[in-house]
Amino acid sequence: MVSFETDYNNGAVPEILNRLVSTNDDKTTGYGFDEYCVSAKARIREACGMPSAEVYFLIGGSQTNSTVIDALTLGCEGAIAPKTGHINVHESGAVEAFGHKVLVIPSDGSKLTASGINEYMTAFLADDTFEHMVQPKVVYLTFPTEYGAIYSRKELEDIYSVCKKFDLTLYIDGARLGYGLMSLKSDVDLPFLASHCDAFYIGGTKVGAMFGEAVVFSNILAPKHFFTTVKRHGALLAKGRMLGIQFDTLFTDSLYFKIARHAIEKAETLKEIFKRHDIPMAFDSPTNQQFVILTRTQRERLQKDVAFEIWEPLPDDRLVCRFVTSWATTDAELHALNEALDRL
Amino acid sequence: MVSFETDYNNGAVPEILNRLVSTNDDKTTGYGFDEYCVSAKARIREACGMPSAEVYFLIGGSQTNSTVIDALTLGCEGAIAPKTGHINVHESGAVEAFGHKVLVIPSDGSKLTASGINEYMTAFLADDTFEHMVQPKVVYLTFPTEYGAIYSRKELEDIYSVCKKFDLTLYIDGARLGYGLMSLKSDVDLPFLASHCDAFYIGGTKVGAMFGEAVVFSNILAPKHFFTTVKRHGALLAKGRMLGIQFDTLFTDSLYFKIARHAIEKAETLKEIFKRHDIPMAFDSPTNQQFVILTRTQRERLQKDVAFEIWEPLPDDRLVCRFVTSWATTDAELHALNEALDRL
Amino acid sequence: MVSFETDYNNGAVPEILNRLVSTNDDKTTGYGFDEYCVSAKARIREACGMPSAEVYFLIGGSQTNSTVIDALTLGCEGAIAPKTGHINVHESGAVEAFGHKVLVIPSDGSKLTASGINEYMTAFLADDTFEHMVQPKVVYLTFPTEYGAIYSRKELEDIYSVCKKFDLTLYIDGARLGYGLMSLKSDVDLPFLASHCDAFYIGGTKVGAMFGEAVVFSNILAPKHFFTTVKRHGALLAKGRMLGIQFDTLFTDSLYFKIARHAIEKAETLKEIFKRHDIPMAFDSPTNQQFVILTRTQRERLQKDVAFEIWEPLPDDRLVCRFVTSWATTDAELHALNEALDRL
Amino acid sequence: MVSFETDYNNGAVPEILNRLVSTNDDKTTGYGFDEYCVSAKARIREACGMPSAEVYFLIGGSQTNSTVIDALTLGCEGAIAPKTGHINVHESGAVEAFGHKVLVIPSDGSKLTASGINEYMTAFLADDTFEHMVQPKVVYLTFPTEYGAIYSRKELEDIYSVCKKFDLTLYIDGARLGYGLMSLKSDVDLPFLASHCDAFYIGGTKVGAMFGEAVVFSNILAPKHFFTTVKRHGALLAKGRMLGIQFDTLFTDSLYFKIARHAIEKAETLKEIFKRHDIPMAFDSPTNQQFVILTRTQRERLQKDVAFEIWEPLPDDRLVCRFVTSWATTDAELHALNEALDRL
Repeated sequence: MVSFETDYNNGAVPEILNRLVSTNDDKTTGYGFDEYCVSAKARIREACGMPSAEVYFLIGGSQTNSTVIDALTLGCEGAIAPKTGHINVHESGAVEAFGHKVLVIPSDGSKLTASGINEYMTAFLADDTFEHMVQPKVVYLTFPTEYGAIYSRKELEDIYSVCKKFDLTLYIDGARLGYGLMSLKSDVDLPFLASHCDAFYIGGTKVGAMFGEAVVFSNILAPKHFFTTVKRHGALLAKGRMLGIQFDTLFTDSLYFKIARHAIEKAETLKEIFKRHDIPMAFDSPTNQQFVILTRTQRERLQKDVAFEIWEPLPDDRLVCRFVTSWATTDAELHALNEALDRL
Repeated sequence: MVSFETDYNNGAVPEILNRLVSTNDDKTTGYGFDEYCVSAKARIREACGMPSAEVYFLIGGSQTNSTVIDALTLGCEGAIAPKTGHINVHESGAVEAFGHKVLVIPSDGSKLTASGINEYMTAFLADDTFEHMVQPKVVYLTFPTEYGAIYSRKELEDIYSVCKKFDLTLYIDGARLGYGLMSLKSDVDLPFLASHCDAFYIGGTKVGAMFGEAVVFSNILAPKHFFTTVKRHGALLAKGRMLGIQFDTLFTDSLYFKIARHAIEKAETLKEIFKRHDIPMAFDSPTNQQFVILTRTQRERLQKDVAFEIWEPLPDDRLVCRFVTSWATTDAELHALNEALDRL
Repeated sequence: MVSFETDYNNGAVPEILNRLVSTNDDKTTGYGFDEYCVSAKARIREACGMPSAEVYFLIGGSQTNSTVIDALTLGCEGAIAPKTGHINVHESGAVEAFGHKVLVIPSDGSKLTASGINEYMTAFLADDTFEHMVQPKVVYLTFPTEYGAIYSRKELEDIYSVCKKFDLTLYIDGARLGYGLMSLKSDVDLPFLASHCDAFYIGGTKVGAMFGEAVVFSNILAPKHFFTTVKRHGALLAKGRMLGIQFDTLFTDSLYFKIARHAIEKAETLKEIFKRHDIPMAFDSPTNQQFVILTRTQRERLQKDVAFEIWEPLPDDRLVCRFVTSWATTDAELHALNEALDRL
Repeated sequence: MVSFETDYNNGAVPEILNRLVSTNDDKTTGYGFDEYCVSAKARIREACGMPSAEVYFLIGGSQTNSTVIDALTLGCEGAIAPKTGHINVHESGAVEAFGHKVLVIPSDGSKLTASGINEYMTAFLADDTFEHMVQPKVVYLTFPTEYGAIYSRKELEDIYSVCKKFDLTLYIDGARLGYGLMSLKSDVDLPFLASHCDAFYIGGTKVGAMFGEAVVFSNILAPKHFFTTVKRHGALLAKGRMLGIQFDTLFTDSLYFKIARHAIEKAETLKEIFKRHDIPMAFDSPTNQQFVILTRTQRERLQKDVAFEIWEPLPDDRLVCRFVTSWATTDAELHALNEALDRL
């Protein structure tokens, strides 16, 4: 059985494991004040081309979203998101748990648009009753999106511009940031992204780490008491060095980008394999998540040899199924997939 | 200047004022344990035809929704609502303030449908990732809706039935309940409504009282520690008797229903007046809120003599405007409106 | 049966009732934007001697505390209070409901002290782990306290000074403010109090109104989005004029102070009556709440004729009992108490 | 420089690292449904002697407390704790963040007592105003406490008994559980503890793991929707296997207990070293945390060679300082401490 179920279905890149082993006996202070965290933060600032950015390490993605959005908003303020946004669907209400409404606005598929934000805010401010409503404050988008889509330079520029117009804070969820930036279709690199939002996070969990997300406040200062807010959210790792070691490794010799590119290349091959078997794509994704359409029979047969996720049913009873590559995907696995498809 | 702005733009029905004056010197215990509250609860149980219902008095509508929904849900549970639901739009996130997500599902205009709930729950339970989502628990609907629509017996029966199928609690926001029940088009009366939901509230603020809403747990017990929950929500009135006196008066000699019917009759006349002036309705409303379409010029001219609310702009730049009658609307006011329309 | 149970055991001062009756048919806009609210705010600013203070009307005391403290704090910030503070004991956790910890510090009986705050903050900042703790932000005190004590000018000055030193916001709960300011022992008047704190509220519910508390931001601007925050807390009254009418009346011709002084005078007589019957005071209170010590037998007998509250048991099994006068207390009631004590 | 700063100042026990390396290429499903988690849960149930206990893996201690207490309480319910309890001091208000008050009651040093709980609950229920207060629901204690103290069998029995009497849920924070159970003074073992509370957690972070805490619902079912609640708290690890692998290793061949005993033995030696240098203990601790009293001069000199934590100042200006051993403490480190003390 080979698995294309997720990009977090195995351990960590070997470089990280080696580093954990070699540093295991060092004694360091806790909570992220160790030398590994210091070094990792410096490397991330450098990779972003933003020497004064503030970097914090948290553990997981939903936790990071809930913590950062809470820190960026007052109680009665909320976060604008597309309907498919992770915070709106798959975080068990972690944003609402801290009192903030997710404000769903019309989107272009899984992507927010500058015009959509502009129209929403214009109508909001024109409404005589707007003071009775949740006040929009954060704009939340994912890069790449939950459906594998990416934003272009132009799109990010326009969105950030409309955010500034309405005093909104742009926060980018980068759970799979590496795979988005390394997409063959992407014209966005890390410095561009960092300079076209207020805050974002660099996903580690899905891009080679055991766990960990690096929050970067790139164009704003970190919110007041952010360390305490992280602790209050249960997001402060006692052995903070584990995060520092991992991100220091990922941002040494561009490892983060190299492994992400590996996944993209394997995803392109995977796409070709499906095409060769006349299995249609549900939509075009230039990243490491691929969405194919299977009949129920195909899905049943294929699941005997290959692990993947059912994404959603189509009206015609076929199924959108998700196949994900990662930094760890091998040619052997793709070969096994190919053979399984041959046998369908 | 006459006002059709809202149904809470004046004081209280004279019977309530008289009662407040005549009881002013009585000394009673606080927090709703006085004799007036006891009597008012008995009258409400009787009007509902549910001798064992539990009744609590709160102060305002948003407060009541936030308190009751919070009491009926665990932290990770949320409330299903239509997009136009008051809790989703005009309560400043009071439901989210206590940690609960409002789960917007497709609706028939401003009304939820049994089939909509059924489809949503079926898809939810079929989704492998449902444990990562907010768990639906309460179904929230308004009777009449924010757009003046009402549910039929059949519709309520079907909705309550699907709620039971999925272990959902049906809670009805009756901010304008009287106007809904007394609509000429309504086949629902209070006992029917009370027996076809788990909990609801009888709106006082908009139907003759100075303030006050009566929460009725008709088919379920009041949630554990409900009194303390009310207090925690800042919704416990120290001089609780003020609520008892008002509801005791409203439910003596069917006053609540009589004044609501008065508003409905005036709304029918108001509809005719607009029809006579060839001003179109935005949609048909059988209750005390009427939604007419005015050009911007008409609106400007009319607002010199008549107070009303801009509801929303139409794509063609005309405006949906809301005109509301109440228990206090007079023929003289309708006459003045008629004359103002003549002058347009 | 006469009642000294509370100062909110009857209706409202006749002037308020009359005003409600005479204004009943006026049509006004909702939510506190009516002319009565405008006038009441002006009168309160004038009585405070602070022309630029911002005034908001809320409904009840616990609600007001929860709303104001929430508006003045970030999520990880808390409110310093004495152990006996109302927010710490009798609000069902309404402050915590919005995420904020109540930080109990040593006090002088029911009163905070400048030195107590100073010591707490000094130790807090000297603690290496302070970033793992709730960050103190608001200082909460009641004037008069829950035990009837009042602060002197000197004490308020010192407390406000230490608050400024540590960037703390001083917020005063004035649920019974009138009775505190009108105490024969008080050297504090309303302008002094208003200028020696950042925000406070003028209690209406317990001082002559049916309900209502006037929040005054005297030395700071109202927090951003405060109107929306009030709505989010369920504290926005639809018929906001009810609050405006009441406070406008209370602050016309110093009515608020006159009725409070009446209660103080009656409390002094009440004290004498107990003294004459050799019933000891639990502690000295210069306000309208008096705390006497009764044996269980005395209490049982007295409760046949007089309503009062058991405050707390003493180690020797006697009981501290509370007797409260109000603007409505009559000589006849005091006479009846005297006779009941004669019969003990 | 040697470090006795904390028991989480290095990596993980080698057995865990080895296991992470050897399993790194396995593909597993996420969120704790992998075979390692299944195995670890079985081993923990066995070590507890409770075949039907439910086990969940979370990441850190504060997170675990906040999540479990939230899951065990309704909104208006709170958690009883001693003043020194971790949830009351060092979790940045994470319990309050989810709306629950920490109810501090008198304690015996850092330990709760059965009589203290009994007196508190008796007074609470006898208070006429108890419905206006936060409702006590969870009893929170730490084993060992933040000051290194442990509870005896008798004490746990009595506390659990009083909890049952008042329908309170007993939850034990076992951040350092191993060190408590392996104390030379402890008569409590894991099965005894598991059977004398409702829920507890077995600390991994401070006892050999990189991170991770195992929550055990031993005498109650896991709260409804607990998985979703964990996710909502940001406490669900995507690569859940990391937790399974660690706990499976710790509970193979009693590794957890062996490494904890090692720390206890080193703590006993450390105690002797201080005694030999006539440095007094602040109080007696039978666990791996030792609290000694140093003058400011001693502290300054010692900190040149040895890392440790300042716990709190004494009135006489001396300092309570904490020295902590762990599973990783070596004789060489103790030797270095001894030499540093010789040089004072």
